[in-house]
Amino acid sequence: MQENRIYNFNAGPAALPLAVLEEVKASFLNYAGSGMSVTEISHRSKWFEDIISDAVTRTKRLLKLNDNFHVLFIQGGASMQFCMIPMNFLKGGESADYVNTGTWSTKAIEEAKILGKSINVAASSKDRNFSYIPQDIRFNPDAVYAHITSNNTIKGTQWASFPDTGGVPLIADMSSDIMSRPFDAGQFGLIYAGAQKNIGPAGVCLVIIREDMLNKVPDTLPSMLKYTTHASKNSMYNTPPCFAVYMLQLVLKWLEETVGGLVKMDAINRQKARILYEILDAGSFYKGTAEPDSRSLMNVTFRLPNEELEKRFIAEAQENGFGGLKGHRSVGGCRASIYNATTPATVQALADFLKTFEQKNG
Amino acid sequence: MQENRIYNFNAGPAALPLAVLEEVKASFLNYAGSGMSVTEISHRSKWFEDIISDAVTRTKRLLKLNDNFHVLFIQGGASMQFCMIPMNFLKGGESADYVNTGTWSTKAIEEAKILGKSINVAASSKDRNFSYIPQDIRFNPDAVYAHITSNNTIKGTQWASFPDTGGVPLIADMSSDIMSRPFDAGQFGLIYAGAQKNIGPAGVCLVIIREDMLNKVPDTLPSMLKYTTHASKNSMYNTPPCFAVYMLQLVLKWLEETVGGLVKMDAINRQKARILYEILDAGSFYKGTAEPDSRSLMNVTFRLPNEELEKRFIAEAQENGFGGLKGHRSVGGCRASIYNATTPATVQALADFLKTFEQKNG
Repeated sequence: MQENRIYNFNAGPAALPLAVLEEVKASFLNYAGSGMSVTEISHRSKWFEDIISDAVTRTKRLLKLNDNFHVLFIQGGASMQFCMIPMNFLKGGESADYVNTGTWSTKAIEEAKILGKSINVAASSKDRNFSYIPQDIRFNPDAVYAHITSNNTIKGTQWASFPDTGGVPLIADMSSDIMSRPFDAGQFGLIYAGAQKNIGPAGVCLVIIREDMLNKVPDTLPSMLKYTTHASKNSMYNTPPCFAVYMLQLVLKWLEETVGGLVKMDAINRQKARILYEILDAGSFYKGTAEPDSRSLMNVTFRLPNEELEKRFIAEAQENGFGGLKGHRSVGGCRASIYNATTPATVQALADFLKTFEQKNG
Repeated sequence: MQENRIYNFNAGPAALPLAVLEEVKASFLNYAGSGMSVTEISHRSKWFEDIISDAVTRTKRLLKLNDNFHVLFIQGGASMQFCMIPMNFLKGGESADYVNTGTWSTKAIEEAKILGKSINVAASSKDRNFSYIPQDIRFNPDAVYAHITSNNTIKGTQWASFPDTGGVPLIADMSSDIMSRPFDAGQFGLIYAGAQKNIGPAGVCLVIIREDMLNKVPDTLPSMLKYTTHASKNSMYNTPPCFAVYMLQLVLKWLEETVGGLVKMDAINRQKARILYEILDAGSFYKGTAEPDSRSLMNVTFRLPNEELEKRFIAEAQENGFGGLKGHRSVGGCRASIYNATTPATVQALADFLKTFEQKNG
């Protein structure tokens, strides 16, 4: 590969489109004729105003958001959203529904509880080690919101379609599958996504909030923790994480102009996932950890016959230029994260390696 | 200048050392032989562990911090610290002292008040339009902490030395002069600095906290808003803003290895400021806005005889390759921000331009 780049299967921060990296590199000492690096321009300059406004426009166009939605860029990652959501929306006497599908859902629930908020776990897949997405959930019609994690990076599960909440505003942590497929944003009150998996580098969290949700925000919160602050100032209440927003903008531009939008991205992502799941299903050497109807198109998690073989697999993969295949430290095993920027050719190279390794060790 | 780069006098985000920008550019597709961009490596990788640990080590060495201090990297800028500080340290019935020296001090006070905290403004320079730093302040001996803003970017003032608080832990917003000069960190309970002026790009805030301050942090705060979380996890509780930390690390390396440390940096900064203040003081055409004994070595704020001349000055400066000389939109006038990365040659070029403009228009 170019400049000795590896096949990058990191779970996040993760691979970024090579064309985006090349554009950043080429203009790094002089952005758009400004005579400055993009890291040196003022966030109040025309140059940066254009960057952030283009990022908002592309987000709205890609997700077909109407003018009821605000697109915000906030610091602190998804973890900061875990606390901002209950702080902004849940008053005393009110309750919210959460669906627990793994580590990140669990953390979201914990952070709301630290604040003393009333949380109802409407469904959970903990009974089978978070290997599936619960179906036929009955949400509390009086819940202020219902929270889900759309894709679970650690257990390799993903909501194939979103649940009917009966009018309760749905809130989703989409950190690991935002912009990977088209979906109807209409039922969502808020969507958030740390950028470092599908849409950029670490350091910025995309937050999409529906206008009516802003009415719930109390005045008694500090400015930086209120969604109303960020919405009224177009994410420029204080200095935003400029470089991360800039790279995010370039990734969205690549998604629209090079890939051709979310329908095409989805087709490519399905093709990539199919290549790997077919190998997992073809024999008994590799074993997928997620239940088939709940499998993630983003994170393919699997085990080998024993831990010794897994160690050898990861080591040999590394030697052959495949990085990031170790499962999350909390669960072990193997994981191939194949976000938007991972090319079909990279996935095919891994597929070939999987087959060769099985032939040698199966 | 190289690659048609301008003379950058931005107030922040601001000029960065050219050598740092060149290093980022050179390795952007393949960081340290990883085969990945620095924006694509895992924050749990050896590569990033080395980056963040080197940034901590250099911060401690440059500021001569002993092991009582934790060096943290937190998102949300100084504005997030405005609320985190009272949330973490001020319980009901307790009070803190604040010195009000301008816009940023005022915001820090406001954010504490939104939280219903008891704040005592121990001193203020509002009476003379924040053009000076108050002296001989009597701090409340029972205050939990005393808060100051070490350098005021908008009004162009700076604390020449830090006040005696009589044992009350001093907390300082050093966003605009951190690492510009040596100082004794001993009396500080907490120091914070948005990186985008003296030590890096936007998107990361350096927080230095003394061990005993961590004992005050209540359990009832969300994880992301507690200093104890960030301290116990070495700023890796969740994905940090990796690229911003990386650039910060390179800037500190430049400061130690190329500049030679804070004593040398201070001498250079004093020389740069002297060049400009001598011109302001030499005649009546330019007029510095800060009182002489409170002048900032970082932000030189000045007026011309009238607003029409100021407009012409800024426009002609722009045409001649000098950017960022417009004063903050809240005060007007002119401002040259001359942080660490602004070279003496760049300041001398501005000095020459100032003289020429005065000759033509004075």
